[in-house]
Amino acid sequence: MKKVKVGIVGLGELGSVHANNLRFKIPNAELIAICGVPAEKEKLEKLKAEWDIPYCFYDFAEMIKLPELEAVVISSSTAAHHEHALAAIQAGKHVFIEKPTGLNEQECMEIEQAAAASDKIFTVGFMRRHDPSYAEAKRRIDAGEIGTPILFRGYSLDPEWVAEYLAKRAAKNGCWFIDMTVHDYDLARWFLGSEAETVYALGGAYAYPVFAETNDVDNGYALMKFKNGACAFYYSGRTAAHGSHVETEIVGTKGMIRICDEPRRDRIKAYTKDGIVEKCLNLYLERWGEAYYLEMQHFIDAVEQGTQLEITAHDGTMATKMGMLTQESYVSGELKKF
Amino acid sequence: MKKVKVGIVGLGELGSVHANNLRFKIPNAELIAICGVPAEKEKLEKLKAEWDIPYCFYDFAEMIKLPELEAVVISSSTAAHHEHALAAIQAGKHVFIEKPTGLNEQECMEIEQAAAASDKIFTVGFMRRHDPSYAEAKRRIDAGEIGTPILFRGYSLDPEWVAEYLAKRAAKNGCWFIDMTVHDYDLARWFLGSEAETVYALGGAYAYPVFAETNDVDNGYALMKFKNGACAFYYSGRTAAHGSHVETEIVGTKGMIRICDEPRRDRIKAYTKDGIVEKCLNLYLERWGEAYYLEMQHFIDAVEQGTQLEITAHDGTMATKMGMLTQESYVSGELKKF
Amino acid sequence: MKKVKVGIVGLGELGSVHANNLRFKIPNAELIAICGVPAEKEKLEKLKAEWDIPYCFYDFAEMIKLPELEAVVISSSTAAHHEHALAAIQAGKHVFIEKPTGLNEQECMEIEQAAAASDKIFTVGFMRRHDPSYAEAKRRIDAGEIGTPILFRGYSLDPEWVAEYLAKRAAKNGCWFIDMTVHDYDLARWFLGSEAETVYALGGAYAYPVFAETNDVDNGYALMKFKNGACAFYYSGRTAAHGSHVETEIVGTKGMIRICDEPRRDRIKAYTKDGIVEKCLNLYLERWGEAYYLEMQHFIDAVEQGTQLEITAHDGTMATKMGMLTQESYVSGELKKF
Amino acid sequence: MKKVKVGIVGLGELGSVHANNLRFKIPNAELIAICGVPAEKEKLEKLKAEWDIPYCFYDFAEMIKLPELEAVVISSSTAAHHEHALAAIQAGKHVFIEKPTGLNEQECMEIEQAAAASDKIFTVGFMRRHDPSYAEAKRRIDAGEIGTPILFRGYSLDPEWVAEYLAKRAAKNGCWFIDMTVHDYDLARWFLGSEAETVYALGGAYAYPVFAETNDVDNGYALMKFKNGACAFYYSGRTAAHGSHVETEIVGTKGMIRICDEPRRDRIKAYTKDGIVEKCLNLYLERWGEAYYLEMQHFIDAVEQGTQLEITAHDGTMATKMGMLTQESYVSGELKKF
Repeated sequence: MKKVKVGIVGLGELGSVHANNLRFKIPNAELIAICGVPAEKEKLEKLKAEWDIPYCFYDFAEMIKLPELEAVVISSSTAAHHEHALAAIQAGKHVFIEKPTGLNEQECMEIEQAAAASDKIFTVGFMRRHDPSYAEAKRRIDAGEIGTPILFRGYSLDPEWVAEYLAKRAAKNGCWFIDMTVHDYDLARWFLGSEAETVYALGGAYAYPVFAETNDVDNGYALMKFKNGACAFYYSGRTAAHGSHVETEIVGTKGMIRICDEPRRDRIKAYTKDGIVEKCLNLYLERWGEAYYLEMQHFIDAVEQGTQLEITAHDGTMATKMGMLTQESYVSGELKKF
Repeated sequence: MKKVKVGIVGLGELGSVHANNLRFKIPNAELIAICGVPAEKEKLEKLKAEWDIPYCFYDFAEMIKLPELEAVVISSSTAAHHEHALAAIQAGKHVFIEKPTGLNEQECMEIEQAAAASDKIFTVGFMRRHDPSYAEAKRRIDAGEIGTPILFRGYSLDPEWVAEYLAKRAAKNGCWFIDMTVHDYDLARWFLGSEAETVYALGGAYAYPVFAETNDVDNGYALMKFKNGACAFYYSGRTAAHGSHVETEIVGTKGMIRICDEPRRDRIKAYTKDGIVEKCLNLYLERWGEAYYLEMQHFIDAVEQGTQLEITAHDGTMATKMGMLTQESYVSGELKKF
Repeated sequence: MKKVKVGIVGLGELGSVHANNLRFKIPNAELIAICGVPAEKEKLEKLKAEWDIPYCFYDFAEMIKLPELEAVVISSSTAAHHEHALAAIQAGKHVFIEKPTGLNEQECMEIEQAAAASDKIFTVGFMRRHDPSYAEAKRRIDAGEIGTPILFRGYSLDPEWVAEYLAKRAAKNGCWFIDMTVHDYDLARWFLGSEAETVYALGGAYAYPVFAETNDVDNGYALMKFKNGACAFYYSGRTAAHGSHVETEIVGTKGMIRICDEPRRDRIKAYTKDGIVEKCLNLYLERWGEAYYLEMQHFIDAVEQGTQLEITAHDGTMATKMGMLTQESYVSGELKKF
Repeated sequence: MKKVKVGIVGLGELGSVHANNLRFKIPNAELIAICGVPAEKEKLEKLKAEWDIPYCFYDFAEMIKLPELEAVVISSSTAAHHEHALAAIQAGKHVFIEKPTGLNEQECMEIEQAAAASDKIFTVGFMRRHDPSYAEAKRRIDAGEIGTPILFRGYSLDPEWVAEYLAKRAAKNGCWFIDMTVHDYDLARWFLGSEAETVYALGGAYAYPVFAETNDVDNGYALMKFKNGACAFYYSGRTAAHGSHVETEIVGTKGMIRICDEPRRDRIKAYTKDGIVEKCLNLYLERWGEAYYLEMQHFIDAVEQGTQLEITAHDGTMATKMGMLTQESYVSGELKKF
């Protein structure tokens, strides 16, 4: 069995998920190298030994010199994305990179141009598109089931305990309209088939005033117009009492589709003294575990078969642009145009 | 506007609902007389005055002597049903009677024969058949939507607090397999279009041992075979933590229909720290208020138009027979045949 | 039994519902007069006869001269509201008026001032507030169940067939952002406990271009900021394939409540070859029949007891102002401030 | 990394799933041998080559001679279970065997005795117990959430297309009350914590008369009493229009739990002209894929750690006994006692 030889940089929470999938769940992938920062040495060496991984690096430039390395998964910190992405492209590797592709539009654009000039695969970790429910919704919408899409509604709500955790380090986080809503910008473009034209954003640091110190929100809302006349409403929050709730609705002229309006954790319905009770997902990994696996499988399959993926560096650029202008609208209180 | 002149006997909880509907909500009815036992005099006289009701009686025989009286609603105690029903039929009145029609099969049969010999309307208060969801389900099933019905599943669960109340007076109650399940026997006959052939009943006084003293259950189950091969499963309980739960399922060879699998109290869905929570109905009147109104409206309309109703005295007899044999099966532990 | 003597002007679709409730379902009301335009004479005389209504007028000024008349229900055309409301107040009658109270802010303000100067009851037909699910949601929110409300989401979707009907007479209708969304403006103010500050509206005549001729939409969206920092998102449409769908969500810092996210017509769930299928409401009267009854009962009770109602003329004024500015934002494409 | 060396016999539909999990998804397992019948040679050799499996056998006795082989997965035909299970136990291997453990009670008992005499692990493929929703339900019930369990309701419905397929080879299949309901017998014992005492079974070959030729049903129902007074109702069918529907309910004295009353295929809810529509699972592998993976992972973990599993050969025996007596009750029309 021929296997795609892969190296991964960044083994934080999500990077570890990718590494695990590459090592154990994707038959046509072989994880031959991991790369982290020197401070992670103990953890990485342990992983290398336990998982029988041939190489372990503390310098990304060294890893991509491996001639047998075919593909690179970049889940390092956002600040390092620009450097890692350009280097990997230059070294002639296939690239899977976590969102956002860069710290700002300039970085994203440079990566996009480099990727466009390469004949290798370059894709971005917008895993929601790979989730079976989203993929199926797209198929049904493309088949005309709801007519022409005219409204996208995206809710991305993190559970309260995440806010409690993040509030302690608010200054170090990115803005919620960028970090969290980015997935919804991408979905809106995907489902509506158009590009953003105007945006008006509101919200506040209602429960955790500390977020206001960095002009950030704990609950933010934005209304966006697209060039084809369709619109999007985004609600990104981080104080959901019930759990991790990512809900998407696409309204068309002939019907509408909702994805995950009830973020149930399992298939249990309890009839109790409180009424009918369904417990909810509490962790993003519970919801997206399968999508993270599928996106990586799709990436490896694409490398093996030499076919480009639907999600490209351009999608990363656009989502970042949308996040930045939305954040500008929120801070200024003004309507913004793309 | 011509109005049907009605008298009612029995103004307990349910009788009061009927009286209120007749007095205020049914335009083509005129409640001209109420009848109770002497002990209720104060309550009845107050009602007579407040509602401007022409007559108030303490002897049913007197009420039905009123020549202008056209129709009688019998919601007196079950023990009085036989006497009241026969007298009303003999006096040439249209009759609406609460279930069960009599204390035993013998009484039911005598009423059925008298009703059959009369040219007046005689109907029984199986209100579920009048509930919009049940009526619609019947229409859809009769239209062939689920093919041939092969299984009826009827859940009739009272909330815990009812058991707590009834447990204190267990000796005075009828058996649960008769008092409660009677509605499901009627629905099973209605939906399956056949008559019962065998029954096997189980259950127990699991939470309220006092019910065992009268061979009664707090939760009972029965499996019944019908002559046409279809079957029914009944579960009647009285310890539901979540509320009043009457659920009906009809499985056919081509599909299945569930009615009220989620006995929601209103249209609210709360997303709380406990998950997604929907409060449930807690009182049978919340669930059946509309059905009680509709059955009375249908009765009055039938009287006005001179058309027989679908539910007849025979349905009352059959449901009583089914309840008695089910109870016998439970007590004996044996399979019983009709 | 003492009854409140009521007259009604305007017996169109909704006016007829009010008249029916007053005549037959509200025990402490007596419908003594109906009033319409001469063109309706045949219909009104028939009603007068069939329902035994003492008086029938074709001139509102005449009706309110009736000395025994205590309360007036105004469901005439919006163009006549100003005249009818002022006249009724001046005549010392209690007033229930359909929304909107006037054609523009000026008319609404004059009515509001006249009502404020009167010691009689004046209330507006925002029936949703009387719906049991909405009333219960308000109680639970006021009790602190969801913390501080920070987002109101209001969907008001009419079924496709309504658009087909209205498209033929588009020029005669009011704007959707006013006619339909008005209920949501009122709910947003009610649930958020604050007044609007800015609004940005989008939308289009996506399926029925004829609406564009009058600057109207068939699907419109608006994002609104309130003075207390909470926000509202409105989606009002008229091309819903599934039926009549009015959904409301209130998000708080500690939880969220959804009302009617599944506008089911009844309690039936069908398991068919298409999956699990629940039919939806198709007419606004199916959804709001009980609310229309309750608002009228509450009005009559208030008159009988001499207590003011929560909904006043001021609420009518505010909703109209919000609708007008939202429509201005839509037409201009600009962010608008109150 | 130490890995458990496993061999599998039987590579039919389900066997292939197990083999795939062992080969690719269970890090601490190493699939070193596959075994089939000579007729499958081409398929097996291809698998051996593609998956780099060291050994391929056509004689089970040969496979278990491999000294390094530690564990055996038996998913051969039921007729071969007895021979394979006894041989594997005798060879000192850990055993995972598909249900039913044997063709009849005698075979099951012999296997149970042999397993009991061995110090190796022996477990049976009742995968539902490993499904996250079932495992969670068990935890909650054991924690007392619903009080004392008093009723188990198990629905196991295959989609129509399975009946169409099976009807063509009805004579070769086992009985539905054994083949399908066996999972529910096991669940009932597990949740109720007791053993069966009586059973009464009904049903019919309603849609596919061919099943009647072998005394089999296309839809069967049974009511069972357990020694501790709790009861179970089983409905096993194979004409479900909506899809693959396995629903379980456990009613306790203090609450009730339903698992999968809505066998949704994904998280999509469509609002269409038909109403609200949710597509259903259509294949048992869609529903149980994760459970099949988890049961195998749990087996391998148990072998690695040397800890017995909850499901033993005894559970296999009991489920088979229950199936046989239920089938006897159905054929005879009589109440049966264990």
